[in-house]
Amino acid sequence: MAVYTEVADEELEAFLEPYGIGQLLSYKGIAEGVENSNFMLHTDKGTYFLTLYEKRVAEEDLPFFLGLMNHLADKGIDCPVPLRNRNGEMLGRLADRPAALITFLEGVSVKRPQPKHCAELGRALAKFHLGGQDFELKRENSLSVGGWRPLFKECSARADEVVAGLAADIESELSYLEANWPGALPQGVIHADLFPDNVFFIGDKLSGVIDFYFACNDALAYDLAICLNAWCFEHDASFNITKARALLQAYHEVRPLEPSELAALPLLARGSALRFLLTRLYDWLNQQPGALVSPKNPVEYLRRLRFHRGISSPAGYGLDQ
Amino acid sequence: MAVYTEVADEELEAFLEPYGIGQLLSYKGIAEGVENSNFMLHTDKGTYFLTLYEKRVAEEDLPFFLGLMNHLADKGIDCPVPLRNRNGEMLGRLADRPAALITFLEGVSVKRPQPKHCAELGRALAKFHLGGQDFELKRENSLSVGGWRPLFKECSARADEVVAGLAADIESELSYLEANWPGALPQGVIHADLFPDNVFFIGDKLSGVIDFYFACNDALAYDLAICLNAWCFEHDASFNITKARALLQAYHEVRPLEPSELAALPLLARGSALRFLLTRLYDWLNQQPGALVSPKNPVEYLRRLRFHRGISSPAGYGLDQ
Repeated sequence: MAVYTEVADEELEAFLEPYGIGQLLSYKGIAEGVENSNFMLHTDKGTYFLTLYEKRVAEEDLPFFLGLMNHLADKGIDCPVPLRNRNGEMLGRLADRPAALITFLEGVSVKRPQPKHCAELGRALAKFHLGGQDFELKRENSLSVGGWRPLFKECSARADEVVAGLAADIESELSYLEANWPGALPQGVIHADLFPDNVFFIGDKLSGVIDFYFACNDALAYDLAICLNAWCFEHDASFNITKARALLQAYHEVRPLEPSELAALPLLARGSALRFLLTRLYDWLNQQPGALVSPKNPVEYLRRLRFHRGISSPAGYGLDQ
Repeated sequence: MAVYTEVADEELEAFLEPYGIGQLLSYKGIAEGVENSNFMLHTDKGTYFLTLYEKRVAEEDLPFFLGLMNHLADKGIDCPVPLRNRNGEMLGRLADRPAALITFLEGVSVKRPQPKHCAELGRALAKFHLGGQDFELKRENSLSVGGWRPLFKECSARADEVVAGLAADIESELSYLEANWPGALPQGVIHADLFPDNVFFIGDKLSGVIDFYFACNDALAYDLAICLNAWCFEHDASFNITKARALLQAYHEVRPLEPSELAALPLLARGSALRFLLTRLYDWLNQQPGALVSPKNPVEYLRRLRFHRGISSPAGYGLDQ
């Protein structure tokens, strides 16, 4: 949850004017997202979303993120779309920060996804991947295999404070993944953070995907591996194969997975579990007193990692060979 | 800003069902108010506001607050109105807290009120006071003259940490006000916290008043004295007599002030300045590390208090005698 920046009414009205969205009726700072300050606006023409980008988002990446939303929306993907002002610009400035005015996407994120939600997710993710194929901008994934060791170095000394033996466990996993990480899988734009809070539903139907601020170029199947971790484990850390099957089959129907992608799934799932284990471990060990956001416990990603080590083929995720 | 309680989608949908407000399209925790958790909801029938009452609001006071909003709305006052569920109840329970679903009031609070805003406020406050005259429930003002000494006792020992000599200054002011506080002024329901963030405008027109959680029975003119303090001083602490005149004259046109009320204004303004000085001093000295809300500096209310000591008649607030 976050609203880091307060915006005064006159400043906001001056910012909005060149967008031609009518008279401002209300705006509320909303508690959503941990990177930025977000506001929900009503005008006499509709509802809009305003994001002020705080320090954690690199300003040079904004054209990629905003351009991607715009590109995907043009392809018929359900997602928020940045508005252009009178000068054709998607990115403005407000309260001394980069700021974008974005269409408001209706929908509710599900706290306990069911198999039907996972199937909807699979279809939407495949469409996202297909829609992103001809997006012209590129952004490297700084949190893929090459980024994990530097991150680990910053927290290895204290990792055993969280779980005894954790540092050695991560060290051996990291060496294994570095040596075996698949290089030749189909590439494209991935969302890279498609957790349940970033997917909206109205009733049982997926209404859209939000929060593109980790999107980057990487193996498409790696995105699916992130979803396996984020959507298919229960709160007690047990794996729900019915959800995984629903996710993977629905994806496969829209964008058929290649044999190399299917074979790589267990490894990609280990890598994705390690990625979230490492970032959560880092945040856990570097808590700021008084921070608005409580860090998430890294241990649930250690459990997921251990689960995936026991999987040797896509059958372990519910797919027929 | 505040969202203290997270609400899961299934829980929320079950709570909403008996209100018959259609299908939930979205809900966002909003950063508004410091006492409660607030959410903005869209359904296919409209926009609503959901409040979960946290510990700082006494549950036994809720029928007064919600009943007052309902009563005032019936009288044509612009304010949010609690919805009744199928059983006719305005108060429900959600996430183990008392909760109310309330109409959403459009409008924007002004950060730098102008005289035209003060005039709108004066008219609205007078209508509020007239509309509340026949409200049947009562609630004592625990933050009136009788409540100040106990509050002062809790912070007198450390008051001089904020400003040298502050404890002695408050002690003498308090003794003076206790001895001279007017007892026979016209009484009624007052808002008691009508700061600019609690008054909404669309363009230059006041669209409504929110946040009734300090409302109580007290001298009506005391509410006006609170507004003098909250609306008629500039950021450099100088008094703006044009704003005060606009406020008082507009009020007087709707509900004529009695001579006793006019004569008491300087004293009521001192009392109101002391009330906010004391609560801010208390919060300042009792800051919680990691709290979501930064306490406001009490010194600006000391300056206001000193200003009002120099006023001997309503002419000091811009009113002709």
